[in-house]
Amino acid sequence: MSDEDIAEGVRDDEMSGPDSRRVAAVIEAIDAKDKDRLDALLEPLHAADIADVLEQISAPERRDLLQLWSREIDGEILSEIDESIREEVVESLSPEVLSEAVRELDTDDVVDILEDLDEPQQELILDALDDADRVAVEQAMAFPEYSAGRLMQRETVIAPDDWTVGAAIDYLRGADWLPDQFYHVILVDPRMKPLANVTLGRILSAKRDTRLRDIAEEVFRTIRATEPESEVAYLFNQYHLISAPVVDEADRLVGVITIDDAMNVLDEEHEEDILRLAGVGEGSLSDNWIETTKQRFPWLFVNLLTAILASGVISLFEGTLSKIVALAVLMPIVASQGGNAATQGLAVAVRALATKSLTNSNAFRVVLREIAQGLANGLAFAILIGAVTWYWFGLPMIGVVIGLAMIINMFAAALAGLLIPLGLEKLGFDPALASGAFVTTVTDVVGFFSFLWLAGLILL
Amino acid sequence: MSDEDIAEGVRDDEMSGPDSRRVAAVIEAIDAKDKDRLDALLEPLHAADIADVLEQISAPERRDLLQLWSREIDGEILSEIDESIREEVVESLSPEVLSEAVRELDTDDVVDILEDLDEPQQELILDALDDADRVAVEQAMAFPEYSAGRLMQRETVIAPDDWTVGAAIDYLRGADWLPDQFYHVILVDPRMKPLANVTLGRILSAKRDTRLRDIAEEVFRTIRATEPESEVAYLFNQYHLISAPVVDEADRLVGVITIDDAMNVLDEEHEEDILRLAGVGEGSLSDNWIETTKQRFPWLFVNLLTAILASGVISLFEGTLSKIVALAVLMPIVASQGGNAATQGLAVAVRALATKSLTNSNAFRVVLREIAQGLANGLAFAILIGAVTWYWFGLPMIGVVIGLAMIINMFAAALAGLLIPLGLEKLGFDPALASGAFVTTVTDVVGFFSFLWLAGLILL
Repeated sequence: MSDEDIAEGVRDDEMSGPDSRRVAAVIEAIDAKDKDRLDALLEPLHAADIADVLEQISAPERRDLLQLWSREIDGEILSEIDESIREEVVESLSPEVLSEAVRELDTDDVVDILEDLDEPQQELILDALDDADRVAVEQAMAFPEYSAGRLMQRETVIAPDDWTVGAAIDYLRGADWLPDQFYHVILVDPRMKPLANVTLGRILSAKRDTRLRDIAEEVFRTIRATEPESEVAYLFNQYHLISAPVVDEADRLVGVITIDDAMNVLDEEHEEDILRLAGVGEGSLSDNWIETTKQRFPWLFVNLLTAILASGVISLFEGTLSKIVALAVLMPIVASQGGNAATQGLAVAVRALATKSLTNSNAFRVVLREIAQGLANGLAFAILIGAVTWYWFGLPMIGVVIGLAMIINMFAAALAGLLIPLGLEKLGFDPALASGAFVTTVTDVVGFFSFLWLAGLILL
Repeated sequence: MSDEDIAEGVRDDEMSGPDSRRVAAVIEAIDAKDKDRLDALLEPLHAADIADVLEQISAPERRDLLQLWSREIDGEILSEIDESIREEVVESLSPEVLSEAVRELDTDDVVDILEDLDEPQQELILDALDDADRVAVEQAMAFPEYSAGRLMQRETVIAPDDWTVGAAIDYLRGADWLPDQFYHVILVDPRMKPLANVTLGRILSAKRDTRLRDIAEEVFRTIRATEPESEVAYLFNQYHLISAPVVDEADRLVGVITIDDAMNVLDEEHEEDILRLAGVGEGSLSDNWIETTKQRFPWLFVNLLTAILASGVISLFEGTLSKIVALAVLMPIVASQGGNAATQGLAVAVRALATKSLTNSNAFRVVLREIAQGLANGLAFAILIGAVTWYWFGLPMIGVVIGLAMIINMFAAALAGLLIPLGLEKLGFDPALASGAFVTTVTDVVGFFSFLWLAGLILL
């Protein structure tokens, strides 16, 4: 495939992000400092794909690309760029390019960019905005981080609720600005309290003299500006909302959140869950190895402490171990099986808490279920591993010991996997913080202790 | 709070699902067989919340509720219900209630319900539909499971691309049916090939004589009906689509997918990732303990095999262990630390593959980064644990042994955590199948082997 084909054959690439051939061609163009070829390769791409290219090339390549192509970076690309490289990109832009870029964005996108930047860069961007936008952005930044107020766009399309369809259409035709995307006309009372949503589809298909309030949607929910964004994502997903008005403490309309923002939040929440469960606080593929090392160290350190704790438990039984070395061979099996069972329960619990399926109403029943499941699988694996070790070491009693320890540890695993995230949630923490390290401490300690203690009791 | 308060004070509950007080009141009403109270408690709720109530009560309570209240189950509730209890609910409905329920749904929702049911129940529902809908549903079911064709609704709003805004509005006003929700008018050529999307907002704000093609959206993507639904979710999230036309092999329009469906898929994909990573294939909170035990058994069995493999490695060094029991105390530390490091890398890789951030373009660089990170953290923890064990056992050389083993295992962890999911992806499997069990096999084996082998070499 020639370069021209790649530059022209955009369709397939567009289906699912920039492909590797294109990225390779971009890197070649950067190395050759060939601005025209770079244009041909990048211009046909969606801003989100250009951002992906920027993320997928190396830091020096990115530096060169930005030098060559910085004038083409617009607001849309800026708002698509991952926060891990955003600072780097913003720094590379001239003040003129930057101000032009941010001026074309809706206020919610400007807020999204600002959040991740340092103070001096924030100032740079705020200065680039005209006064009205600057005030709007500063007001949004006054809401807590990760709140609906930060997420909303302030541009709303409203109408008094006694208007007719015809009046609304005439008003919209005459409006000199409208948001890029809007899906509802929000009906408000004279005090700006939102009363109902009318979908544009219904406005378009109704007669001109129909009252807006008569074709309003049945399902209507407002969101408080201080509500956390995770709640926003939940509401959109649960009630299939497309857009929802945001209100202040006095129930006055202050903005609107659309589903694409909520989908983005849902995606980020999931990322957080999956990374936290694995003991990675944050991190992106664009981070270099030093940043990555630092990000992973803390949880590994916690794990080291818990591993030392487990070793301490083993050391209580050095006497037993020195008499029967086979115990040292077998003891990791009990701990590992418990760790795995706990991780299973943990993932189910974290997911169920995130979707609000695990509540006070069914928590007790789910605890009972986990216990029953733990005992049942414990019994199954007790028989399996008991038989294997009996055969392996020719000692029936060692099979009994490992079997009993297995049942005890699977029971502990069932409890730990559910109660630790549930407890964290009750205490107001993110249950996904109950990452492997915490939960497997329980199963390591219980596993080693029960196995070695029973061995001392039964075999010696 | 009295029952009336709960039944009336709906607003707060509506903000985020049914609360536990309401569920408790529902259970009381079920026990008292009080249909009126049940009505008062459930009627104000959104269908999604009624479905949640059904999921959160126990199986016998659900049976009683359905007996008392089955006539009120409508299509919306049916399509909100989790698949784990859907069969149960469908079975409890009389044929008349069932047919009325499914008849009010769009075809995509009927397909969604059908997918999870057994053949006889599918027939029951298909029979309830009128002929046109039945054909539409059967055509959708002919597409592969988890494809765009199953996800789309067949009801589309189209216009020839030379129409004006006025013509479109007149046509919409005269249309005797329109989908519940639509966000675009799709412009098509005479062969029904989709050419562009026009948002309803632009139609409403443009003059009547404006040509639709002149106000079409710049970003326009069509989706093939055979495309997997995960790709659909990616496209909506990546390009902030609100709705997208679905085409057949001949590029003819066959349906449309809206963002709420895509958001739902995104959520399900995440659930799958998080559960698979933890070695839980599927499962829901409504499953009973027997189902749960069966679901968790297979991965626990795989883990047992890998744990036995690790034990086999340890047994190679029984001689060494019998001479220095301290090794048995320390060996789980190396394995555990490696397992944790691998899990971190694994979660990052699985997430990056799901968002298409990890590609051929940067895979090599990410491998190098993981190796550097593994060696750096390995060195840090080698020094830490080396010092601790030296102090603990008073033997400097045991600190050296555990330190070296730590570096080797963290290096192995870095490779396994990244290369195993990457390899699975290349082979066409879901990288999230590289659940803990697989990856930690590597770190267990390498951890035990390197530690005990080095100990034999250096200490004996």
